[in-house]
Order: sequence, then structure tokens, then C-alpha cells
Amino acid sequence: MTTSFFPPQRTLMGPGPSDVSPRVLGALSRPTIGHLDPLFVQLMDEIKGLLQYAFQTNNELTLPISAPGSAGMEACFVNLVSPGDTVIVCQNGVFGGRMKENVERCGARAVMVEDAWGEPVSLDKVAAAFADHPEANTLAFVHAETSTGVRSDAEALCALARDNNALSIVDTVTSLAGIELKVDDWGADAVYSGTQKCLSCIPGISPVTFSQRAVERIQSREQKVQSWFLDMQLVMGYWGGSAKRAYHHTAPVNDLYALHESLVMLQEEGLENAFVRHQRNHHALVAGLEAMGLSMAVAAEHRLPQLNAVNIPDGVDDANVRSALLNDFNLEIGAGLGGLAGKTWRIGLMGFASSEHNVLGCLTALEAVLTREGASINASAALPAAQAHFSGQ
Amino acid sequence: MTTSFFPPQRTLMGPGPSDVSPRVLGALSRPTIGHLDPLFVQLMDEIKGLLQYAFQTNNELTLPISAPGSAGMEACFVNLVSPGDTVIVCQNGVFGGRMKENVERCGARAVMVEDAWGEPVSLDKVAAAFADHPEANTLAFVHAETSTGVRSDAEALCALARDNNALSIVDTVTSLAGIELKVDDWGADAVYSGTQKCLSCIPGISPVTFSQRAVERIQSREQKVQSWFLDMQLVMGYWGGSAKRAYHHTAPVNDLYALHESLVMLQEEGLENAFVRHQRNHHALVAGLEAMGLSMAVAAEHRLPQLNAVNIPDGVDDANVRSALLNDFNLEIGAGLGGLAGKTWRIGLMGFASSEHNVLGCLTALEAVLTREGASINASAALPAAQAHFSGQ
Repeated sequence: MTTSFFPPQRTLMGPGPSDVSPRVLGALSRPTIGHLDPLFVQLMDEIKGLLQYAFQTNNELTLPISAPGSAGMEACFVNLVSPGDTVIVCQNGVFGGRMKENVERCGARAVMVEDAWGEPVSLDKVAAAFADHPEANTLAFVHAETSTGVRSDAEALCALARDNNALSIVDTVTSLAGIELKVDDWGADAVYSGTQKCLSCIPGISPVTFSQRAVERIQSREQKVQSWFLDMQLVMGYWGGSAKRAYHHTAPVNDLYALHESLVMLQEEGLENAFVRHQRNHHALVAGLEAMGLSMAVAAEHRLPQLNAVNIPDGVDDANVRSALLNDFNLEIGAGLGGLAGKTWRIGLMGFASSEHNVLGCLTALEAVLTREGASINASAALPAAQAHFSGQ
Repeated sequence: MTTSFFPPQRTLMGPGPSDVSPRVLGALSRPTIGHLDPLFVQLMDEIKGLLQYAFQTNNELTLPISAPGSAGMEACFVNLVSPGDTVIVCQNGVFGGRMKENVERCGARAVMVEDAWGEPVSLDKVAAAFADHPEANTLAFVHAETSTGVRSDAEALCALARDNNALSIVDTVTSLAGIELKVDDWGADAVYSGTQKCLSCIPGISPVTFSQRAVERIQSREQKVQSWFLDMQLVMGYWGGSAKRAYHHTAPVNDLYALHESLVMLQEEGLENAFVRHQRNHHALVAGLEAMGLSMAVAAEHRLPQLNAVNIPDGVDDANVRSALLNDFNLEIGAGLGGLAGKTWRIGLMGFASSEHNVLGCLTALEAVLTREGASINASAALPAAQAHFSGQ
């Protein structure tokens, strides 16, 4: 007989999921009510308003997709892209490649703009791609590349799209609630995110928002959206503004309790305060890592405070170190992905996990494990460097 | 400022979600761990084994899709159906219509076999459709129609598909764990379900299983699956048997804790015992409803024990009754769907909600509300009829 599962209490400092607050876990386990219950419909309205705040948008079509971020990505592509379209896709990490897959599975053509992993998207290359492909009607890019820890200039990229009469599809899975994101001010058109990063909610839900321009394109489609589940014209009937909600699919009721609570916590803290907290903890972590003798993989001006890519020192066994952190310290950090596997670690400081306690705990554990592994580091230098940073604030 | 949400404790006796056991809610809120954590990979293996038991299958490709039942349906269609295919789709309620949408969005042709809502799928009509369409390579049908409360003969339908060299796609959203379902014995090929019905888990996850014949069709596809998120060749890399799990998307970790616990509870009770419990409570409810003077909408031999469609008495206001049950008794029952809106109620007795306590509570509340609404019913007859049924067991 299989028995109940009791997970250990980990500290999640990888690329997500991040630590979930006890408040959010408490909300998650409240009694399930029906997805058409009038009280649930009120909750849906509150979630919409809270997501509009998080995204900094007044977009009417702002809602959580009932599936993980990959499905949110797919929702943006299948609704906005039609067969025969040309889409400029920026790739500077894993997720640009996934966008290309989405474009091609929509029967459209992906024009790739490639930058090195660890570098931001080049505005000049995107401008050149538009010049070469005046038929392109969509630009897709990742704001915060989870695979490398790099921030691209989303504001400038959205402006480039507008200047070329294209709509923008923006991956904000790792940026939402961690760094500045202004959907309306920047004129982003279709934006998706995830719950398990800087919102510090459980994984499984993907907040999305669509501009009026995006809605118009969806409404003027000649072909049906290839996905019934992700067809925004149908989803709108359930999440739309009218009092009468048309059943589309059964909403993930408890997951939405959790999302609501995580957004209430974000509102209580305030977006700006959350950004400052992410920055402070990031700088302290970097100070500690550099004092230890490690080096960051991304240039300072492009670093994401919520996801810190660190070069693995020569001669150190990547998997050994991560296993030791997990088994001896209950601490999860992330491996490198794709071309960076074995070369970098990704240390997340996302949402609830972005705390002084976690910065100091991670430095302590990493120092202990690297020392044990025989790495040449500056023992005992990391903690004072990080603490000095905190006390200096 | 938006504040935390505290739902009331409802009794969920609609078409789903059904009541979730406190054990499952407790599992749901355990600390989140990473989706690549070795302990999580063990949990995934256990879930796979438990789902194989629930589905009565040895299919290697048995796993929970990270999204609701509608996405499970779509996963079966987009992986098995290619552009130009002909699919025979049986429709005797809402969900056959959704299958047609799925077929057409795959670029295939749907040959519809229609039966009246409230009737099972006609085997003769399906046989005739195969005779008329020898090119059909797939048969799709709903085992337990959630919109009407009707059971169709899944075993015979799967055999018809096999006899005609077609694969079967079977909707078991409402049947899994409520009535007999033998995937291997019946030779069903692609089967999807939901968590929020007779498993009494939270909504949001869709268990699926694919036969070897289905896997071979997926592997021999000429075109990529149009959905990246639901592409089984990619999902297999994460859920497959090898020790090395390739990251596809971030699994809904906490939801899978809940699914695991609900499946552990099912294993503890035993499938056969669960079926007997659903039958006993169904017969008691029907005895009570009929003693009250109400009539069932479906002939006895086709009724689902877990979903009881009741004719709304003449002159009774559907919405008033359901609102009164919800507001005064915290009891949710279901409205009619589609052509049955305003004509029937759907009373669910699913999973954890299928209990003597709920049968008696529902009859008591319904009698009180119908009396208040001035309906002509036999007052005080329902409870003794149901109780006699229980004590006679």
C-alpha cells in the first residue's frame, strides 16, 4: 500500500518554485466552493483587480490561466498568431526557443533574433529584423530570462514593436512582482507570467493580460484558435465583466485562493517596496558570493535581482554541491539550463524567499559545502560582506 | 485594500467540484518542494502507480496533466488526431459537442453520432457510422455524461472501435472512481479524467492514460502536435520511466500532493468498495426523491450513481430553489446544462461527498425549500424512505 506523502521543509532558492508563505498555504487549503458560486465570482473579480495592479494595467482582459506558465505562453501565441504570420522571436536563453516552437506550431514563421546566453536582447538586431521583415506583425521576447538571469529592456522592445505596427508578446514569468513591469506605460500587448516565482504562490497558474489592440486582433481572427482550452474568446465568457458567467471549464478553485492571498500580500507590501527588497537582498548576496571568491555570470547592469547566475568554480562538481545543499541543508538552488548546464548555478531570491535570512543561510551553506569539496574560496569572508551590506542600508 | 478571502463551508453536491476531504486539503498545504527534487520524483512515481490502479491499467503512459479536465480532453485529441483524419464523435450531452470542437480545431473531420440528451450512446448508430465512414480512424465518446447523468456502455464502444481498426478516446471525467472503469480489459486507447469529481480532490488536474496503440500513433505522427504544452512526446520526457527527468514545465507541486492523497484514500477503501458506496447512496437518494414526489430524468438502467438528474417540478423556480439551498443550507446542487437548463437539477454524490449524511441532509434541505416555494410534494416522506434504504442494507 502506498502511504501519505510528507515533504521536508526545503528552502527554495532555485529558479522557481520559490518558497511559499504560510499565509498562502493556509489560503490554499480553505474549503473548496463551486466555480459558479456567487462568492467565488466575487473572488474572481478581486483577483482580476489585484492582477491589474501587479501588471500595472487597466486591461479588461486580465486573468489567471488555469495551468502553468508554459500554457500562459501558449495562450498568448495561439490567440494572437495565425497561420502564415511572421513573428520576430528574440532568443537569449531557453525560453526564446520555446517561443519559436509555439510560433511554428501555430503555422506561422519565426524570424529568430539571437543573442548570447547571458546577454540581453539587442535592440539593434530587433530593429534590423523589422527592417528585413516588414511583414512581421508580432514581436516576442522574454523580459527576465529564467535560464540565465538576464533582464532585457522590455520598454524599448515594446516601443520597437509599436513603431513597426507589430504587437508584442512578453514573457514576464520571472519578472512579475520582482522588477519594474509597467504593461500600460510600456504598451505591451500580450503578457504572461507564472505564480511560482516572485509572487511566491504555488506553481500551476499563469496570470495573463491582453491590451485592447490584442483583443481586437483576437476578435478579428479568421480561423478559430487551435486550442479550445486556451481560446480567449471562450475564456472571456467566464472571466468577462458580465454578471452572468458562462461555464467554460472548472476553475482551479483552491489554487485561486492561494493566488488571491499572494496578491493581497503583494498589495500590502506595495510593488515599489517589493522591488527595493529584491534589490537589497540581491546586492547582499552578490557581495557575499564575490567576497567568497565566486564570480557572477551576468554583467552587473543586466542582472536580475531575483535570479542570480553564478559561475561554478573550476574543478567543483556541480551535482555534488547541489545534492549536498539539498540533503544536508534542505536548500535547493538551480542548475544551469541548456548550454549553461554544469557551468552556472542559479540562485533565486524570489518573492517570499527574497529575505535577509535566506541570503545569509545560502552563503553559509554554500561556504560549508564548497569548503568540504575542496574548492579554493575565501573562507569566512562571505557572511561579513553580506551583513555589512544589510547594516549599511 | 483587498483583504484575505475566507470561503464558507459548503456541501458540494453539484456536478463537481465535489467535497474535498480534510485529508486531501491537509496534503495540499504541505510545504512546496521543487519539481525536480528527488523526493518529488518519487512522489510522481507513486502517483503513476496509483493512477494505474484507479484506471485499472498497466499503461506506461499514465500521468496527471497539469490543468483541468478540458485540457486532458485536448491532450488526447491533439496527440492522436492529425489534420485530414476522420473521427466519429458521439454526442448525447454537452461534452460530445466539446469533442467536436477539439476534432475540428485539429484540422480533422468530425462525423457526429447524436443521441437524445438523457439517453446513452447508441451502439447501432456507432456501428452504422463506421460502416458509412470506413476511413474513420478514431472513435470519441463520453463514458459518464456530466451534463445529463447518463452512463454509456464504454466496454462495447471500445470493442466497436477495435473491430473497426480505430482508436478510442474516452471521457471518464465523471466515471473514474465512481463506477466500473477497466481501461485494459476494455481496450480503451486514450482516456482522460478530472480530479474534482469522484476522486474528491481539488479541481485543476486531469489524469490521463494512453495505450500502447495510442503511443505508437503518437510516435508515428508526421506533423508536430499543435500544442507544445500538451505534446505527449515532450511530457513523457518528464513523466517517463527513466531516472533522468527532462524539465518540460513546472509541475503543480501542491496540487499533486493533493491528488496523491486522494488516490491513497481510494486505494485504502478499494475501488470495489467505492463503487458499492456510490450505488448505495444513489439508491437511497432516489428512494427519498421519489417518495417526495419528484421524478428522475434518466431511465434507471442508464443512471450514474454519482450524478442524479432530477426533473424540476412544474411551477417551481429553478434559480430560487438553488439559491435558497446555497444561502440557507450552504448546499450546492447543479443546474441543468445546455438544453436541460431550467428543466433538471443535477445532484452529485461523488467521492467523499457520497455519504449517508449528505443524502439525508440534501433531502431535508430540498424538502424544506420546496415546501416554502409552495411545490406540491409529499412532506416528510423522503427521509423515512431513504433511511429505510440505509437500514435495509
